[in-house]
Amino acid sequence: MSLRDGRVERYAELLLGTCLGVERGWQVIVWGTPWARPLLEEVMKQLGERGAYPLLRLTFSGGSAYHRAWLRHAPLDVISEPAPIEVHAWEQCDAWLGVSAPENTRDGADIPAERSSALEKAYDDARSRLGVEIPWVLCWYPTPALAQDAGMTLSAFADFLYGSCLIDWESMHKRISRHAQLLDEADEVRIVGNETDLRLSVAGRRAEVDAGTGNMPGGEFFVCPVETSAEGTIAFTEFPAMLGGREIRGIRLRFSEGRIVDASADSEEDFLIETLDTDEGARRIGELGIGCNPGIDRYMRNVYFDEKMNGTIHLALGAGFDYIGGTNVSTIHWDIVKDLRFGGRIELDGKVVQENSIWVA
Amino acid sequence: MSLRDGRVERYAELLLGTCLGVERGWQVIVWGTPWARPLLEEVMKQLGERGAYPLLRLTFSGGSAYHRAWLRHAPLDVISEPAPIEVHAWEQCDAWLGVSAPENTRDGADIPAERSSALEKAYDDARSRLGVEIPWVLCWYPTPALAQDAGMTLSAFADFLYGSCLIDWESMHKRISRHAQLLDEADEVRIVGNETDLRLSVAGRRAEVDAGTGNMPGGEFFVCPVETSAEGTIAFTEFPAMLGGREIRGIRLRFSEGRIVDASADSEEDFLIETLDTDEGARRIGELGIGCNPGIDRYMRNVYFDEKMNGTIHLALGAGFDYIGGTNVSTIHWDIVKDLRFGGRIELDGKVVQENSIWVA
Repeated sequence: MSLRDGRVERYAELLLGTCLGVERGWQVIVWGTPWARPLLEEVMKQLGERGAYPLLRLTFSGGSAYHRAWLRHAPLDVISEPAPIEVHAWEQCDAWLGVSAPENTRDGADIPAERSSALEKAYDDARSRLGVEIPWVLCWYPTPALAQDAGMTLSAFADFLYGSCLIDWESMHKRISRHAQLLDEADEVRIVGNETDLRLSVAGRRAEVDAGTGNMPGGEFFVCPVETSAEGTIAFTEFPAMLGGREIRGIRLRFSEGRIVDASADSEEDFLIETLDTDEGARRIGELGIGCNPGIDRYMRNVYFDEKMNGTIHLALGAGFDYIGGTNVSTIHWDIVKDLRFGGRIELDGKVVQENSIWVA
Repeated sequence: MSLRDGRVERYAELLLGTCLGVERGWQVIVWGTPWARPLLEEVMKQLGERGAYPLLRLTFSGGSAYHRAWLRHAPLDVISEPAPIEVHAWEQCDAWLGVSAPENTRDGADIPAERSSALEKAYDDARSRLGVEIPWVLCWYPTPALAQDAGMTLSAFADFLYGSCLIDWESMHKRISRHAQLLDEADEVRIVGNETDLRLSVAGRRAEVDAGTGNMPGGEFFVCPVETSAEGTIAFTEFPAMLGGREIRGIRLRFSEGRIVDASADSEEDFLIETLDTDEGARRIGELGIGCNPGIDRYMRNVYFDEKMNGTIHLALGAGFDYIGGTNVSTIHWDIVKDLRFGGRIELDGKVVQENSIWVA
């Protein structure tokens, strides 16, 4: 824990500089867990050097900014009302930095979805400034739990993590922007792969590039497809989907007029259906994303990495992003990754642009 | 860390019930360190059960609510201005709970006094609500560092701590109130002991009892003596004084017209003088306290316990408490404990009331 890793210093510089552009006098909410201590202490130091104020918000819960011991026991109507002091902090802060460093990635699996959803909803308005009015970045710090999920040692996972983050984001951004432009110019996307043939309209919609801001690591572009357009089927059979600490294998979905009309899974099917029934928007696609980060070349059992994997696409069921034209509303936003590296392709207006992960356009 | 200790549950009940009286809807700032996790998780749970909101503020610094990595590197003018979001939280919260659980009680010893003082001063106004408008309590959680300072094993220290806290505070309060009443009725206090003969006026001043609210453990009463009244000498030779992680042995002070006119120490004398020169008020007495907790019968190298030790008195140099008539202003409030158990006595208006720790009045 106290062994000095020079990469931590560069990581903090990346987060506060490239990602957030922290300036003197800023109040920066820094969310994390005690297991990210070396990075958090370095962030505190560098915020000091920049003359900015850290608002450190540590929890013992790796995947949530809230306190699970509280969430399990508070009355639902109290959970549904945000704490005014916390709302004020969200409304007044100048930037938000989240450091995900879980002790156990399955923690929280025992909390009823109704409670988690109520909590998310309570703070939705206050948090809507993120990425619109103020910069934010969500990053990771290597913990044994993350390494274990990825099937790696801690040291190998740390190498992987820093390798996917401490890179030249400017040139990555340029390259991804060229692919995103193809999508901007197209009306229809077709995803073809194993048990999969899905058509989506992106007419009038703009793709967003995530490469060095917002998520760290970044390395994707994404779009909110026309909400009523999805037609066809998709099977997520290559990788399990993760939600709230649960693992759902072999999800198969059929869409008609943008809505999921048939859904099954090889495991946790009841949980899948329950999640799709969260609200009306949960059965529609909020986001289509295309992973482009060549440094991420294997499934990590962590959607924030997996969705950036070169040669994959992901659909997010639920909420779209209104700043890029998305209109779907839901309390969920659930990213599920589909591998197209082996026998898959992406077509734009009937023309193949990517096949077996290789861009041909 | 995860072994269940039933005393933690009762401790949390004491803090949230007896000490704070937390009600539904309250926003409660909970300050602590990761090393107090079992208690903090229990506090989160019980705040949930009470329908109150925890505002958990963890730091890696055991003795301060602020971040030392930041404090070492931020510009002094930034430190001197409070973060508006934090000020708002202090102004709006309904209660404050601090759990002191240091990893290393010497942490912070390298921070220049000028920086710590500037930080304290910045939040002074916002924090002045504590104990006046809203309830607060500062308590302890057993850590190896605290046990080590006390010369005990962790398990023995935990027994000591819970033994001094999980008691009948109502009857303790009654007993101490009787002693405090003697002080209220007196004009002059005289402290006599080893190398010590000090006279203080308490005319027109009211004593405050600390027994179950404010500090946990409590067990003292205290008064703000008339600021210009101290005459004579006092020698703190029995126990070292602690400040900012430093240990100062053998402090000897001579007072004239309430002001320290001569000061020496057997160790860290330069630091002593520097501290006395912090500001004008640092050379005057802000508080005279009298320890009455029979559960605390040995020096723990921790002033929060030591000042409650039965048969001791303590002087606080620096700031007085204006809610009980104190007028001395200073950025410091430094409690130093004097043992009267062996050859010491307290006189009120010339009459001995306590001798060798036994109340004779």
